[in-house]
Amino acid sequence: MCADVTVLGLGPMGAALAAAFLAAGHRTTVWNRTPGKADALAAQGAAEAVTATAAVTASPLTVVCLATYDAVHEVLAPMAGELAGRTVVNFTSGSPEHARETTAWAERHGVRYLDGVIMTTPSGIGTPDALLLHGGPQSVFEDCRGTLAALGDPVHVGTDTARPSVYDTALLALMWGTLTGWLHGAALVGADGPGGNATATDYTEVADRWTRTVRTFMNAHAPDIDSGHCPGADFPLRLHLMTMDILAHASELRGVSSGLPELFQELTGRAVDAGHGDDSFARLIEFMRKGGPA
Amino acid sequence: MCADVTVLGLGPMGAALAAAFLAAGHRTTVWNRTPGKADALAAQGAAEAVTATAAVTASPLTVVCLATYDAVHEVLAPMAGELAGRTVVNFTSGSPEHARETTAWAERHGVRYLDGVIMTTPSGIGTPDALLLHGGPQSVFEDCRGTLAALGDPVHVGTDTARPSVYDTALLALMWGTLTGWLHGAALVGADGPGGNATATDYTEVADRWTRTVRTFMNAHAPDIDSGHCPGADFPLRLHLMTMDILAHASELRGVSSGLPELFQELTGRAVDAGHGDDSFARLIEFMRKGGPA
Repeated sequence: MCADVTVLGLGPMGAALAAAFLAAGHRTTVWNRTPGKADALAAQGAAEAVTATAAVTASPLTVVCLATYDAVHEVLAPMAGELAGRTVVNFTSGSPEHARETTAWAERHGVRYLDGVIMTTPSGIGTPDALLLHGGPQSVFEDCRGTLAALGDPVHVGTDTARPSVYDTALLALMWGTLTGWLHGAALVGADGPGGNATATDYTEVADRWTRTVRTFMNAHAPDIDSGHCPGADFPLRLHLMTMDILAHASELRGVSSGLPELFQELTGRAVDAGHGDDSFARLIEFMRKGGPA
Repeated sequence: MCADVTVLGLGPMGAALAAAFLAAGHRTTVWNRTPGKADALAAQGAAEAVTATAAVTASPLTVVCLATYDAVHEVLAPMAGELAGRTVVNFTSGSPEHARETTAWAERHGVRYLDGVIMTTPSGIGTPDALLLHGGPQSVFEDCRGTLAALGDPVHVGTDTARPSVYDTALLALMWGTLTGWLHGAALVGADGPGGNATATDYTEVADRWTRTVRTFMNAHAPDIDSGHCPGADFPLRLHLMTMDILAHASELRGVSSGLPELFQELTGRAVDAGHGDDSFARLIEFMRKGGPA
């Protein structure tokens, strides 16, 4: 059980984490390398530790949120002995390789370790929509899940501690793809011409409803990627390409940039030219890999 | 009230519409220009009309799903008298201008007219996720809504009959943006390297969860577009650009095409260069319009 918790690093994100633990009623110890960052948290009930060692020995679970992985190693290495048998959840931003190196260090010293990423901003922490991804042993995650739930919605993405970092990047690609497509649509419906006088707010109400349908397409296509069997059924790639041409034409007519439609047309056109016109959208993943399909 | 319904046009989509009306218990009359398309529907209880005029006079509501707007005019024009006072919902694919022209014709002849688009494939018809958009008088929509609900989820997007067609194109941009971002992410998590060995199915489970968060961003940004006030708060454009650079780098490392990251970087980079680094993602809409921000 991880009822008491320590937070190392009180930048904007670390401070938001500590505040959410406090708000959920956890006894929370905080520490920051440079002093003066803990005053607001102390007023909310946090115990400020004078040294990092005092901080990590105050709780069975330490959440780390420092500026870099170099800082993580500088702070944690001298107190490997104290951390042995305790749990560290590290939300410091870094690469998959950083996560792997820190995992190897933790294993050498008997530290129970999860690498995590926080898929929201400091102001989103503590809301149910805040997604937090964790990689590492399932049992370590299960032991901490109740405490981590104070921060949002904690999800375990596998035993590989490098995975959250890769998922982070992948999910941002999905976010930007969605938001860029949404903005392109908002530009079209707000442009001059017949039907093109909707507010972004009106359009977004329908767009929000539409994302429910798009999710069903995404979920339906996922197994096709894994199996390599991508039947196009009644919306094959050649039909996608025809409607992409309509999007490109409407964008041109309404003075909206052609960047996004051209990217869709180029990718889909290559797949159709390679003989995949009857396949589903899932087939396109092969044309996103450099060198193309095997 | 529109309990009885007629369907003109029995291509794959028209036949799916008629089947859904029948399944929901509506007395359904069907007609197709070339014969022989109604047999399966007749077996499900549809009445096949010999002429289009007989078909439209059998019901207060006629749903039209023909190949082109030219076909719509060829079929409807000779029976304008019979259609006066009746309701026509036209799901034929076409441009905003097509919708406007047909609306003018309907108004001249006293036909109650909605122009609609169907945001799914024939196999999706009749499922609650199937989104149908309608433009035209609110009262006409309200009278038909109960009958149209047999097809999926009918939504009224305004009195302008050209709007569904524009929304159709806009929502497809959102769909392709989402699916392309999702595929890019799936390529990243499935690539070689630390953490990169997830199946698309595992990744999509988290991606599906993540879309809930992305929707909250979209909904939060919509009023910013309408007001032109786009505060970046704790995720301003300069931070987006920094994390887009990480996406580009990770894509390069993992052998995933740079097309999508480069489009994000180019668009966001222009906005940051123009002094909008502290603004929110909503500001980018100005950089999607040709000629750039006013």
